[in-house]
Amino acid sequence: MAAISLRRARTIIRKTLEKGQEMGLKPLSVIVLDEGGHVIAFERSDGASPGRFAIAQGKAYGAVMLGMAGTAQMQRAEAQAYFIAAAGAALGGQMVPVPGGILVRDAKGRVLGAVGVTGDTSDNDAAAGRAGIEALGLVAEV
Amino acid sequence: MAAISLRRARTIIRKTLEKGQEMGLKPLSVIVLDEGGHVIAFERSDGASPGRFAIAQGKAYGAVMLGMAGTAQMQRAEAQAYFIAAAGAALGGQMVPVPGGILVRDAKGRVLGAVGVTGDTSDNDAAAGRAGIEALGLVAEV
Amino acid sequence: MAAISLRRARTIIRKTLEKGQEMGLKPLSVIVLDEGGHVIAFERSDGASPGRFAIAQGKAYGAVMLGMAGTAQMQRAEAQAYFIAAAGAALGGQMVPVPGGILVRDAKGRVLGAVGVTGDTSDNDAAAGRAGIEALGLVAEV
Amino acid sequence: MAAISLRRARTIIRKTLEKGQEMGLKPLSVIVLDEGGHVIAFERSDGASPGRFAIAQGKAYGAVMLGMAGTAQMQRAEAQAYFIAAAGAALGGQMVPVPGGILVRDAKGRVLGAVGVTGDTSDNDAAAGRAGIEALGLVAEV
Repeated sequence: MAAISLRRARTIIRKTLEKGQEMGLKPLSVIVLDEGGHVIAFERSDGASPGRFAIAQGKAYGAVMLGMAGTAQMQRAEAQAYFIAAAGAALGGQMVPVPGGILVRDAKGRVLGAVGVTGDTSDNDAAAGRAGIEALGLVAEV
Repeated sequence: MAAISLRRARTIIRKTLEKGQEMGLKPLSVIVLDEGGHVIAFERSDGASPGRFAIAQGKAYGAVMLGMAGTAQMQRAEAQAYFIAAAGAALGGQMVPVPGGILVRDAKGRVLGAVGVTGDTSDNDAAAGRAGIEALGLVAEV
Repeated sequence: MAAISLRRARTIIRKTLEKGQEMGLKPLSVIVLDEGGHVIAFERSDGASPGRFAIAQGKAYGAVMLGMAGTAQMQRAEAQAYFIAAAGAALGGQMVPVPGGILVRDAKGRVLGAVGVTGDTSDNDAAAGRAGIEALGLVAEV
Repeated sequence: MAAISLRRARTIIRKTLEKGQEMGLKPLSVIVLDEGGHVIAFERSDGASPGRFAIAQGKAYGAVMLGMAGTAQMQRAEAQAYFIAAAGAALGGQMVPVPGGILVRDAKGRVLGAVGVTGDTSDNDAAAGRAGIEALGLVAEV
């Protein structure tokens, strides 16, 4: 079965957090969403600020709902800010258009869900999440 | 009767999807709204990302509620971003001010409703939707 | 593949509308959601009131999000009204706990999505939707 | 330090899920919130319906924000439904007033946070969550 199981979601989170520690990043928070944008699992590291769930969810939710990862959203926002603002409103405000919202694809390119990482710089968030996804042999589109 | 019947809405959607395939576009999603902004019909092509209903609805809803098609909304957004942001908030977030939100007019210029198309570039979305509307002999304001 | 394709969604809608006409029902509106609660297709019959999209969506969305069809939601609401009210609020108001919100299962019992039907009595809505789903050889939990 | 660390939150979730399997319950979803009502960790078991995050969050959020566990909320709802409805609205809809929303207290009675469990009957949800909290030597108010 193609979907992300809870076991796989746990592995993605653990490997992302480990990568963050290895890179010396600030405390990360990580969410894993299914292909419909619904939460499978989330963890917030000790020392992270309390609002990290909403940021992680917004990064991942926008990615899976639009089929567009954080880097692509950011490029679109820089070219046409009002489009991304409007899309975010249409999605109920759950969209944070920066790196760290990562599409999870299988080897055939199908979207299985998305991962949202927040806590350090957007690029570092994305690098840690990529490591978590690739640890499972899946493809990360950051 | 001037309104868009379900039969006509189905034709608009089918012709828009066919035009998209003919143009080699990514999988499109198409909504048809009546003159009050309420949904008559919607279809999301296989392979489109799950959040496409909200984007299609936002494109069409903003068009019919303001009487201003997507291209005109985009020009206004580029000239006066805060107006479009405020209008979007006043419309409950259901406004995506780019091409692909298309007003449907009859031969006398009366607005019958709006069509929203999303999935490819905004200009391609608009071109496919125009073909769907014109297939019925109606006037498309993109 | 197990999911509901657009082709299958169209068939469900057409067969539901045909069943409604055969039963002499008022004009129906029908929505098909995927297993994540996202719209695949919707049609509102001519003569139906403009707010039918929201009712059809609420019936189907509550069913798929809680894994509980409309009849079971109604029984729970009659036994414990405040629970269903609270669950509806937690789901953003998109929950209409009466028959006509129908889970679509495959032969193995897996939930593939949900259908929402509205326009006549709740029981008639459910009967029409069941016919639409069973026309595809799928299992309807009303 | 009194707060619930991520390590402790993980233990609560694992022990709750294990208890659910031992009791033969349907697939559970479990959330752990801190003393401010913010998410520390969440897991949804394979086979649970997609909307379970919102229900688990509502159970736990109402408990911690009002300092009143699910059983007490249910009793209040049965005695004075409009109060619980109004409180739920004031909390933005994030309140599900049935057992399964559990206050977590330390030995001195201080509230450290809350746990929300959903998937089976409310009483079974609460029993599983209690086991998860007590596995840490903390006090569960169900």
